[in-house]
Amino acid sequence: MTHILESFFKPKTIAVVGASRNITKIGHAALKNILISDYECEVFPVNPNEKEILGLKCYKKITQIPVDLDLVSISVPAKIVPQIMRDCIQKKVKNVIIISSGFSEAGNQELEDELREIIKGSNMRVLGPNVMGYKNAADGLDASFVYGTARKGNLSLISQSGALGIGMIYLANNEFVGISKIIGVGNKIDIDDDDLIDYFAQDPDTNVIGLYIEAVKDGRAFMNSIKRCEKPVLVIKAGRSQAGARATASHTGSMAGSDKIYGAAIKQAGGIRCRDVVELFDMARALAGQPPAQGNRIGIVTNGGGLGILITDACVANGLTVPKLSKKTYNKIDKILPDIVKPNNPVDILGDAGFYRYEAATRALLEDPNIDGIIIASVHGGYARPQEFTGAILKMIRERKLHEEFKKPILATWVGGKEFEDLVWDLKSAGVPIYPSSWRLARSMMALYLEGERLKREKKKVR
Amino acid sequence: MTHILESFFKPKTIAVVGASRNITKIGHAALKNILISDYECEVFPVNPNEKEILGLKCYKKITQIPVDLDLVSISVPAKIVPQIMRDCIQKKVKNVIIISSGFSEAGNQELEDELREIIKGSNMRVLGPNVMGYKNAADGLDASFVYGTARKGNLSLISQSGALGIGMIYLANNEFVGISKIIGVGNKIDIDDDDLIDYFAQDPDTNVIGLYIEAVKDGRAFMNSIKRCEKPVLVIKAGRSQAGARATASHTGSMAGSDKIYGAAIKQAGGIRCRDVVELFDMARALAGQPPAQGNRIGIVTNGGGLGILITDACVANGLTVPKLSKKTYNKIDKILPDIVKPNNPVDILGDAGFYRYEAATRALLEDPNIDGIIIASVHGGYARPQEFTGAILKMIRERKLHEEFKKPILATWVGGKEFEDLVWDLKSAGVPIYPSSWRLARSMMALYLEGERLKREKKKVR
Repeated sequence: MTHILESFFKPKTIAVVGASRNITKIGHAALKNILISDYECEVFPVNPNEKEILGLKCYKKITQIPVDLDLVSISVPAKIVPQIMRDCIQKKVKNVIIISSGFSEAGNQELEDELREIIKGSNMRVLGPNVMGYKNAADGLDASFVYGTARKGNLSLISQSGALGIGMIYLANNEFVGISKIIGVGNKIDIDDDDLIDYFAQDPDTNVIGLYIEAVKDGRAFMNSIKRCEKPVLVIKAGRSQAGARATASHTGSMAGSDKIYGAAIKQAGGIRCRDVVELFDMARALAGQPPAQGNRIGIVTNGGGLGILITDACVANGLTVPKLSKKTYNKIDKILPDIVKPNNPVDILGDAGFYRYEAATRALLEDPNIDGIIIASVHGGYARPQEFTGAILKMIRERKLHEEFKKPILATWVGGKEFEDLVWDLKSAGVPIYPSSWRLARSMMALYLEGERLKREKKKVR
Repeated sequence: MTHILESFFKPKTIAVVGASRNITKIGHAALKNILISDYECEVFPVNPNEKEILGLKCYKKITQIPVDLDLVSISVPAKIVPQIMRDCIQKKVKNVIIISSGFSEAGNQELEDELREIIKGSNMRVLGPNVMGYKNAADGLDASFVYGTARKGNLSLISQSGALGIGMIYLANNEFVGISKIIGVGNKIDIDDDDLIDYFAQDPDTNVIGLYIEAVKDGRAFMNSIKRCEKPVLVIKAGRSQAGARATASHTGSMAGSDKIYGAAIKQAGGIRCRDVVELFDMARALAGQPPAQGNRIGIVTNGGGLGILITDACVANGLTVPKLSKKTYNKIDKILPDIVKPNNPVDILGDAGFYRYEAATRALLEDPNIDGIIIASVHGGYARPQEFTGAILKMIRERKLHEEFKKPILATWVGGKEFEDLVWDLKSAGVPIYPSSWRLARSMMALYLEGERLKREKKKVR
């Protein structure tokens, strides 16, 4: 069955109410973004004072548009929005995005209640008010008023904060994290986080879901949607502290609620909580690019003993273990190491390690049934050869048979400077998450472990 | 009085024992690094099989060198080192660096004990064995065998791990953190962490001290040196977890000791503990570039409400507070904001904020006696103007009078992509620490607060 929001994210006909020739107006950007999209649909500007905008015939009212409308985007002053919404109801519009602000977030609760009254009893779905809209990168449609193109991928993002949502697009591009959809939810008079989680849960273009929330309207519905979702759900819940909660009240007018209760509920529902935006992308990269870990036992390969210890500490602090090597793995690795060092976990392959030692040690850990996830680390000790480090990782990743047989995540980290930068891009673009700090690395491995645990519970339920 | 290690870090005469014409040998790199240094001194290669190396006359034994020696660098096989050390004693050498490895770290405890016996009773100071040496960037001398030039600055680093120490140089360059000295301590048969902390405490070229340690030999001496030191001391103590401690034992043969006891002792001595290498540089940048905070009350200026909340949460989680604005400050900021928003802390200056709103809000917080430190944030909401954000910060920093009058630290953060990168460099090179995550930002502000507290205690002691 087609999900009810399918026509919202993939409309065949769109009207833009408030479309403008004035390039400084939001209504201009909202129209232009649809037109420059790599997406086929019919577009109808609506503005009572214009005959033509950006080469398109302009309509005075949406009721005059000669076709059924899948989506209407509204960016007119707040006080006019109720009338437009009545027109939408009359025209039997399927979906609406109210970009306009000036409602409850600005103290105008009554005006927002009026919108609620208007849509009551209809089947029309409404996003907003006070939203940026959405960018559907998977299909190429930009139904937002903000500038910027997301790299296509399989992370779908829901943000209660418009600006932060948009900032995340640029950050995502920079981190080689591909986006499927990114959407702002604003004041949520109708379409809520749980509706979107349900949609993304069945969306074949979405593998990982990320949320920035300040408050949810219906806690039970929200948690249940996470529980139902068979994909990893990453949650930034802002307003953890008292001062933070005070700030959410003034930002979106929402009550942050008890942080402890939120934390416990998200965890119980199977969501993974992230500390900030950077951590969300760190974890999303890991979940999108690597298989989940089947357990918490981590094997570490490093060309620097000190770095290995720091990674070990960070892993243990995040609920992972770094077990001793089995006799079999010990013997395999012992053969490739110089006499002056014996294998341990972390496996110290020494500062002069090249491609072969990295590759052979990683392979031994992949084959070890007592290891669930692998971390490969390089510190530039003056004579390190970063390309041999990344080359070995890429070889392991590309050896499909090995990867399919063992299904273990591989994450990487480095300590060094510019000479690593291009190589870091190589790894990121190949889907190998690489992190510049032991802590970020360990947190992301933890996310892979938590996702593995969630899937195990999922399986049990099915039985 | 001149510190005893002055001739160690600023030698006028240096002999390199094990100097080699073979470019793959450590003894070649050790000699070459001194020769390419921007530093004036006499250099004497020592190698019984050569007459000339890199254009310098080569000596068979150090006892044949016709001048007194401030420093001897040794990179010959471990078993020959005792004889060289006896020659050093006979020649009344002031300082020695034993680069050679193959001692206690490789299980050869007896050979290391023999070195201890040889130097017992002499005034000769010895670094190592099993070290990289040091790079004295402040004076331009490179007395290490590893490749790479540190940017000159005022952070001095002590690392028990050679490779990590070197990796930190490259990382430091990339993060615009200037280095005064960086030194490996290796097996510590003589010169220990506390000797170096004491030296850096009186070194006019050092403002901040950073350590990577796995274990200390004399805990009391170590803690006392931190207590005596009137400069901030940042400590990475590796081997926190059991698995990490096991790894330190196999890395440098040292016992990690109880992490809790270390943690409490470092705190009591006034040191600041860092979680990993990235955090050390984050905090070092803050301490080197900004005045300490006189209290924990933080004011936040942001063009995105969501980002402001995340920063607030991270601040509170790290012992800082984000108090409400005073009436006076409220009124100042109210004047510059559009009517649709009222000032709070975090101060949300809205997505379209330009130079003026950033500057005026920051100035109001600088002037507020209830605010001890300031965070300025920008999220690229599609229409943000990153240059106006960084421009306002640079103006505040460069307005010397303002800065000198209020002595408050300013840190910055952003959410966005490539369009911020050049601007981030501008800020970093101007000494304004800017961080890509709320957490790293808050941790660094915490370090400035802890340093402010330490200085207050210091002052009380003097009274």
